[in-house]
Amino acid sequence: MTTPPPCSPSSLAPLSRVACIGGGVIGGGWIARFVLAGIDVKVFDPHPEAERIVAEVLANAERAYGLLTGAPLPPRGRLSFCATVAEAVAQAQWVQESVPERLDLKRRVLAQIDAAAPPEALIGSSTSGLKPSDLQEGLAHPERLFVAHPYNPVYLLPLVEIVGGTETAPGTIAQAKAVLEAIGMKGVVIAREIEAFVGDRLLEALWREALWLIKDDICDVETLDDVIRYSFGLRWAQMGLFQTYRIAGGEAGMRHFLAQFGPCLAWPWSKLTDVVDLDDALVEKIGAQSDAQADGLSIRELERIRDENLVGIVQALKASREGEGWGAGKLLADFERRLWSAAGDRRAPDAPDASAPLALVETRVSPAWIDYNGHMTEHRYLQVFGDTTDALLRRIGVDLAYVEAGHSYYTVETHLRHLDEAKLGETLRATCQILASDDKRLHLFHRLFAGPEGREIATAEHMLLHVDTQAGRATPAPAEVLARLAPLAEAHARLPAPPAAGRAVGQKRASLAATA
Amino acid sequence: MTTPPPCSPSSLAPLSRVACIGGGVIGGGWIARFVLAGIDVKVFDPHPEAERIVAEVLANAERAYGLLTGAPLPPRGRLSFCATVAEAVAQAQWVQESVPERLDLKRRVLAQIDAAAPPEALIGSSTSGLKPSDLQEGLAHPERLFVAHPYNPVYLLPLVEIVGGTETAPGTIAQAKAVLEAIGMKGVVIAREIEAFVGDRLLEALWREALWLIKDDICDVETLDDVIRYSFGLRWAQMGLFQTYRIAGGEAGMRHFLAQFGPCLAWPWSKLTDVVDLDDALVEKIGAQSDAQADGLSIRELERIRDENLVGIVQALKASREGEGWGAGKLLADFERRLWSAAGDRRAPDAPDASAPLALVETRVSPAWIDYNGHMTEHRYLQVFGDTTDALLRRIGVDLAYVEAGHSYYTVETHLRHLDEAKLGETLRATCQILASDDKRLHLFHRLFAGPEGREIATAEHMLLHVDTQAGRATPAPAEVLARLAPLAEAHARLPAPPAAGRAVGQKRASLAATA
Repeated sequence: MTTPPPCSPSSLAPLSRVACIGGGVIGGGWIARFVLAGIDVKVFDPHPEAERIVAEVLANAERAYGLLTGAPLPPRGRLSFCATVAEAVAQAQWVQESVPERLDLKRRVLAQIDAAAPPEALIGSSTSGLKPSDLQEGLAHPERLFVAHPYNPVYLLPLVEIVGGTETAPGTIAQAKAVLEAIGMKGVVIAREIEAFVGDRLLEALWREALWLIKDDICDVETLDDVIRYSFGLRWAQMGLFQTYRIAGGEAGMRHFLAQFGPCLAWPWSKLTDVVDLDDALVEKIGAQSDAQADGLSIRELERIRDENLVGIVQALKASREGEGWGAGKLLADFERRLWSAAGDRRAPDAPDASAPLALVETRVSPAWIDYNGHMTEHRYLQVFGDTTDALLRRIGVDLAYVEAGHSYYTVETHLRHLDEAKLGETLRATCQILASDDKRLHLFHRLFAGPEGREIATAEHMLLHVDTQAGRATPAPAEVLARLAPLAEAHARLPAPPAAGRAVGQKRASLAATA
Repeated sequence: MTTPPPCSPSSLAPLSRVACIGGGVIGGGWIARFVLAGIDVKVFDPHPEAERIVAEVLANAERAYGLLTGAPLPPRGRLSFCATVAEAVAQAQWVQESVPERLDLKRRVLAQIDAAAPPEALIGSSTSGLKPSDLQEGLAHPERLFVAHPYNPVYLLPLVEIVGGTETAPGTIAQAKAVLEAIGMKGVVIAREIEAFVGDRLLEALWREALWLIKDDICDVETLDDVIRYSFGLRWAQMGLFQTYRIAGGEAGMRHFLAQFGPCLAWPWSKLTDVVDLDDALVEKIGAQSDAQADGLSIRELERIRDENLVGIVQALKASREGEGWGAGKLLADFERRLWSAAGDRRAPDAPDASAPLALVETRVSPAWIDYNGHMTEHRYLQVFGDTTDALLRRIGVDLAYVEAGHSYYTVETHLRHLDEAKLGETLRATCQILASDDKRLHLFHRLFAGPEGREIATAEHMLLHVDTQAGRATPAPAEVLARLAPLAEAHARLPAPPAAGRAVGQKRASLAATA
């Protein structure tokens, strides 16, 4: 393989041009992942409604991303639809094939891609079951073809199974893994090809057993789902099968667990030797039970609930291990670090706009932020204001590395005023004005605006002290931090002081008492 | 069955006396669930170290509960160890059997329980595979025996599969479900008995397939675990198999999904017709791969990480649907409502201690609250202070029902001072002093103390307004709320005013500038 092409300045990944062949639910999810990472995407899909379907998946993905992370996404990549496969792939660095699951169809489409794409372009197939060696047959450049099998919803679930065939070059696998990592996904390399790879084989085994349990009236679909989501489903969101059993084995670990539970394998616990006949009666039974379980919620509503739950779960895992993150949460934390760093590169921090407070944070009201009044909870305002302070600190060089080296700014005092409410999903924008500073102190005034009309909903006045975190006491900030702070502070000193600064709780609100 | 025995005043459940026969990891988990719900538990376990093992599980459970919920647990039930089965069960209302998984042993122990327990006592078996009808043979009162199969860690995973045998009375199943619900667990009734019930059959099917994939070197255990936890594991923490596939079917729903994916069942995707031979070589292979995956983390460390992740996931699901909760999170929200209500019953709100501010909140620093400095994040202080305000409001009758009826108190202004830091797991205690009030306004001063020595780490001064939430404007509180507020406000008016009240940000801190 040749070396990766030069990186686009606005893209997070070591590529900037992708082609997606097939734009259904899976193809649309791929398109969203690439476009939101700042990569230009050309799409070919003969379906008459392809543009509408892709637009819907992209809107879902953008909403979910907005809830998932407050880190700054790069400018969206350009999305365009092409009339032929050849046109879509002509300049692509990565081609993702997501056409229906039929070997003959996939081979035909892959042959077109292979003929029209640059010879060094990577070709990933979204197949969930076909072996890559079978897909490679007859290609002129089979060494750049591999399976990249994602999971629905592709824009939220990070997993991609990467599987090479007999002709796949090792460099192809390594490049694919690097690209996926750069756009926030988790490329997991399957060592040997096998039909259905790993995830779908596990799912298929469980699915067959589930169908028997429903057919034999052991339970209905809602009960079976509840058994999963109140027990091992919770476990598997963070540790898989083997690590869970390692813990169950206690201090003696995995070998002890196997010695204890191995014999169960020979018990007659499973009907899996037979394949259940999915006849009309069983389809209707499952369909009716599934309707009852949905309890009036439409697919769209279930989808929204699922996405918000996944967002919450990944965010919870991001907070694991004292903020280091675990599993899908660590992946998000790492991705956000790169997003912040890329956003920093896009900015010109040395030439601040002196005519207005700094616009530092843009985010959205997350479902987890809503209280029993239906509004954004009190402490989430302070979370956004805290993020605003952090954004200012990063701009003057006080970042994670600075903190790890033993110094930081600590907030010692805060005054919040609530002026209006924010609702679920609303965009939020926070600004910061430096009121005063010296070598130890930083006196800030933040304002928070909501919605497209930008109505002011809260203000925060903060006093921070520069501290030696080991000694636990205030100490002057170093010259390089003060040097970055100075031009901002000087510019802000020329702005009018906010009338609400310097107030105590209840002050200037005495007039309300008269109307009480 | 007779009617349930009278409720203990300190217990959440319709029973107050439980016996646990067997106190290993599963038995210990049951003991923790009951004791933390305020139920007295008598234990029989002949293991010489039973007391130590149970104490360890109980400590883990108490720590996890402390992280999971800020709601007030009832006073712990009494835990005592007995020398015989007969002594343990003599006065029990529920007996939980958790002895090793051998039919002959279980039958012998159940016969002892049956003979010595009151005839109306419920008997639950923790068996993970044996049919309840096989366990009922020879009992004098088989109608009160059922399977109550929990999942590890029992103190965090809410699921209990309830399975009746041929002799089990319908009332037994209903009573068992009600008791489990009362202590915060999810009793799911399996309609027909079958070996291994539902959860373990599903797990077994997937486990067999997983062993084949490892044996055949398709992937190693870490890759297999990653495939699970970066994809369907995240899905299954909140929706099960069928609801997930219903969404995948799109607007056409479940029947469409089955038509589309049903044919895969006939594909040769699974080796499940054979049982893998778990010989020494395979055990050693899995053991070595599992060691590599653990990457130096001990079982204890993995256990702690798992528990904290589960806490975070359940809390995320509790925030779902704008705070209504979903799945395990809704279960927690409902449980917490009952805890708060039970705590309210235990208090005497009409006779407040006038000599000190009200102690309203006790909680613990959760892993999700820690920032990159290693301390409790800024906005979590406001979360605890917000909970303190909510606790005061409930005490004057402003609870969820009051808010749903159209009125509430909104915070309009807050002043926070940070005096010291809090670390992971530290206990926190918050007090509230009413500084002033009128028919619309409530002016509060909270103080937050950390650790056993109760060092003061923060204060919060709040101004709240009573509002008509529909109209979105301030309105006088009704007479019954003001009547509950009055005695508290009068008592607090006699306390000295906190010196920090009424201050603006930066005020009285000017002296620091001189030392800068």
